Amino acid sequence: MIPACAAHPHLAEPRVVVPTARISAGCCTMTFQIRQLSTADYPFVISVIDQWWGGRQMADKLPRLFFEHFTDTSFAAERDGKLAGFLAGFISQSRPGEAYIHFVGVDPAERGSGLGRLLYEAFFAAAKARGCVLVRAVTSPVNRGSVAFHQRMGFQLEPGDAEAGGIPVASGYDGHDGDRVRFIRSLRGA
Amino acid sequence: MIPACAAHPHLAEPRVVVPTARISAGCCTMTFQIRQLSTADYPFVISVIDQWWGGRQMADKLPRLFFEHFTDTSFAAERDGKLAGFLAGFISQSRPGEAYIHFVGVDPAERGSGLGRLLYEAFFAAAKARGCVLVRAVTSPVNRGSVAFHQRMGFQLEPGDAEAGGIPVASGYDGHDGDRVRFIRSLRGA
Repeated sequence: MIPACAAHPHLAEPRVVVPTARISAGCCTMTFQIRQLSTADYPFVISVIDQWWGGRQMADKLPRLFFEHFTDTSFAAERDGKLAGFLAGFISQSRPGEAYIHFVGVDPAERGSGLGRLLYEAFFAAAKARGCVLVRAVTSPVNRGSVAFHQRMGFQLEPGDAEAGGIPVASGYDGHDGDRVRFIRSLRGA
Repeated sequence: MIPACAAHPHLAEPRVVVPTARISAGCCTMTFQIRQLSTADYPFVISVIDQWWGGRQMADKLPRLFFEHFTDTSFAAERDGKLAGFLAGFISQSRPGEAYIHFVGVDPAERGSGLGRLLYEAFFAAAKARGCVLVRAVTSPVNRGSVAFHQRMGFQLEPGDAEAGGIPVASGYDGHDGDRVRFIRSLRGA
């Protein structure tokens, strides 16, 4: 048995309820329920999203359409009935075999619990079940935590036309001056 | 023969090159080439998008992903080799039979030419060919020109929980305080 997490001693038994058996709980014994994202989650997510990003204005990057039209490959993580994190992703419509993770948010109070890994693994399983062989994602070059997380999750860095702190960057990738680190991960054998 | 448009007397022959025969040229004799949207269009679109919207900051609402992963149901309109307008839309992944128009932009110098209609009709044809039976879209309640355009294009207004100038509005629909007018249009018999 995994030792109980010091932060959550009330949870005696490690248990993770997830749609696929291969997802593990990370280092913590918290119980997360992973389920499909729903339109009903949208008002809560929008109410916390800027706070979860340390005050950055993020709502414009997350229109409701991702909570309506891509729910079968988007996931919510709940703990004790409260949304602790979410992932909005989709299967590429025009690039066969590709899947894309657009937006992932985890409550700052839940970070370090392995929740990001749970959400990504739920997405990998959903994408693979739909015939995808690779997953793409991007992040901002200043977000070194996100870069490191994607590398731990098995993503490779794609080549860029610039570099920031030794990391390849695609300059002007998204919007005005939106430099991005681009990631790619194979789903073969995953 | 349709009389030549006074604004474009150099175009003697009305001709519209489009992927479907049912799309008409509207009131003008300009020649537009409708083709699939491409990732290569993204830098130009981002460079003009705020100007096309009268200075509003729109780039955050249009990440590159729409120019990469939904190109088979997204369209560019060119005149004389220059991008005059575009439409980014997709087939709903999780709502069978539904299609969604996310973003449409027309160069202010090209408005009134019927170009918006051309782009919508290209999308309707693409959605119908993929088995869709309805199309959804939303707009801001202050954009009365867009509301009128959608009504001319056969969209119905969906019920809202509020009202603005006699029009039903879904309050807080998108992002922070993003009230929206919601449209729905059947593709049956279209």
